[in-house]
Amino acid sequence: MSSTSGMLSGMRDLTVAIVGATGAVGQEMLLALEERAFPVATVKALASARSAGAQLPYNGPGSIDGSVTIEELTHDSFASVDIALFSAGGGISKEFAPSAVAAGAVVIDNSSAFRMDEDVPLIVPEVNAADALAHRGIIANPNCSTIPLVVALNAMRTVAPLKRVVVSTYQAASGAGQAAMDELYHQTADFLADRPLHPKEFAHRIAFNCIPHIDVFLDDGSTKEEWKMVVETQKILHEPGLTVNATCVRVPVLRCHAESVNVEFSAPFELSAIRAALESAPGIVMMDDPSEKLYPMPAFLTGTDDTFIGRLRIDTSAPHALSFWNVSDQLRKGAAVNAVQIAEVLVHADSAEGARS
Amino acid sequence: MSSTSGMLSGMRDLTVAIVGATGAVGQEMLLALEERAFPVATVKALASARSAGAQLPYNGPGSIDGSVTIEELTHDSFASVDIALFSAGGGISKEFAPSAVAAGAVVIDNSSAFRMDEDVPLIVPEVNAADALAHRGIIANPNCSTIPLVVALNAMRTVAPLKRVVVSTYQAASGAGQAAMDELYHQTADFLADRPLHPKEFAHRIAFNCIPHIDVFLDDGSTKEEWKMVVETQKILHEPGLTVNATCVRVPVLRCHAESVNVEFSAPFELSAIRAALESAPGIVMMDDPSEKLYPMPAFLTGTDDTFIGRLRIDTSAPHALSFWNVSDQLRKGAAVNAVQIAEVLVHADSAEGARS
Repeated sequence: MSSTSGMLSGMRDLTVAIVGATGAVGQEMLLALEERAFPVATVKALASARSAGAQLPYNGPGSIDGSVTIEELTHDSFASVDIALFSAGGGISKEFAPSAVAAGAVVIDNSSAFRMDEDVPLIVPEVNAADALAHRGIIANPNCSTIPLVVALNAMRTVAPLKRVVVSTYQAASGAGQAAMDELYHQTADFLADRPLHPKEFAHRIAFNCIPHIDVFLDDGSTKEEWKMVVETQKILHEPGLTVNATCVRVPVLRCHAESVNVEFSAPFELSAIRAALESAPGIVMMDDPSEKLYPMPAFLTGTDDTFIGRLRIDTSAPHALSFWNVSDQLRKGAAVNAVQIAEVLVHADSAEGARS
Repeated sequence: MSSTSGMLSGMRDLTVAIVGATGAVGQEMLLALEERAFPVATVKALASARSAGAQLPYNGPGSIDGSVTIEELTHDSFASVDIALFSAGGGISKEFAPSAVAAGAVVIDNSSAFRMDEDVPLIVPEVNAADALAHRGIIANPNCSTIPLVVALNAMRTVAPLKRVVVSTYQAASGAGQAAMDELYHQTADFLADRPLHPKEFAHRIAFNCIPHIDVFLDDGSTKEEWKMVVETQKILHEPGLTVNATCVRVPVLRCHAESVNVEFSAPFELSAIRAALESAPGIVMMDDPSEKLYPMPAFLTGTDDTFIGRLRIDTSAPHALSFWNVSDQLRKGAAVNAVQIAEVLVHADSAEGARS
């Protein structure tokens, strides 16, 4: 592994590779680089040989005529790349991330391949940005359902210590990729037209349905998606003793995940203090006025970068407990934006280092 | 109030009135009477003056040419009616149920108007059938999201005492009535065709959305739907000390509610014993084989009368805890079928009384 102290090499604008650029997350990564004015000099859009030569829309630095040309991903793709954003599935990450690191890039990986590795930081910048600087070439981006949960819990624990979390998710088709979003869209049209349905991306029909099954099943009856929410939350928060129970459900929503969350604390708290902590936390937007029928909903939050929280209320069914509801755009804060925010952490640390030297 | 000892008058076939016969639940009540071969001599389909004279499909006893003619609901509609099944909203129940009772009918009311009245039994036949016989003219049918929950909890508590329940619901459009189902259907078509959307039955767009708001908001930040799940569960189970936390969410599903449930018990249990109790409980169908991707899903359980349970697993986040997922057809077991089952309790008690005399 080549990086030292998590720093990038100097203050120059950077070469950023996107692995899986044609995917739903990959395209949002391109957009996030552009929108956030990330200091990029050159963008390399990498994908399979099948897509090589095609154009993707991109108006940021290094674009030609508002687009970028897709190159085939190979083990030699990473020469002079500073940051490689991977979002092409765990198999691709395992195969190509070592080549990127060997070439001197820092890999920010959206797959679950390395998340629980001890020497791989798992980062949500609002929560544990400092952990990123201890990387040894690879930094992992958490699961899309973990990110909004830890953003909220991190703000709440400034008021009282966390004890136990029970969460049920309402996860959009986007979490399974562009083809899954397309399947929901077209399958719904087929259902309304009484045409036969042929599920491919989901285990069952998703149109007008809920599927309590995301990722593979484990021996204890939970799914890997549910397990991820447990162990990733503990790792990001540095709270191995925090117990978490998750039930992950796919719902017929195009993008933006929602979560119904119940939290028990180990000490008393005032709800007003929790609310104040959430209101002042970076990356959180409170959307919580029942009298105005105001609460976060997935249909209206596409394209946003924050974690939206509502339905905050005391839960009297246990000591020191509350419930809330959150929504975040799975493709943005749940994936692409969080990855670019991690890259920003590296850049800012590097700038600060440069300023001191 | 006219009834004594909860009995009906003798063994003859009965006159059954359905108040709100044109509604989604009313039509399922007609179907349930027919399918369950309820001992009905005459069916009276009652609705507003607007619908009077129209025909509803009905092939059971007392039908003419496979239909029944709608009559206008008035205070004089209940002469010679033995059982009146009400499903036309709380306002209609409050106004007309006393007239039905005064005329000698037993009212089985699907609204929330009387559920928490001390002298009104709130019945799920698998759980507390005996309570029905203490009625004083009115028996209440629980909320559609409460029914499957208590069916499951009642079976589980034979293994270990219940302590606390946390439930998040995935509720279908059908819970808001036929017009709401139509709105989901047509609004989804409008969305796919890029036509403007005009929500009426729901507070917001429901197509490809989740709305964490069912019934009105209460002062504590919960909704009345959530409050119902708490107090109705305690009343039906005769467990005022059982604490319950509910989050009720509308999802873009046509009919069949689903629930993600977490249960804490006050003593240890074996999961195999819980599973055996569920498998042998009336009204429950276990659908729980992850290796075959088998779990209950709303899209495939329309028209069923049972509570379907899957995703049963130990929850290690608290002592003596488990999680499960249930689905039931909101219009059937969640409303119409449970109401007819309550009527069956009265008939069977009456038959038993007749056999003894």
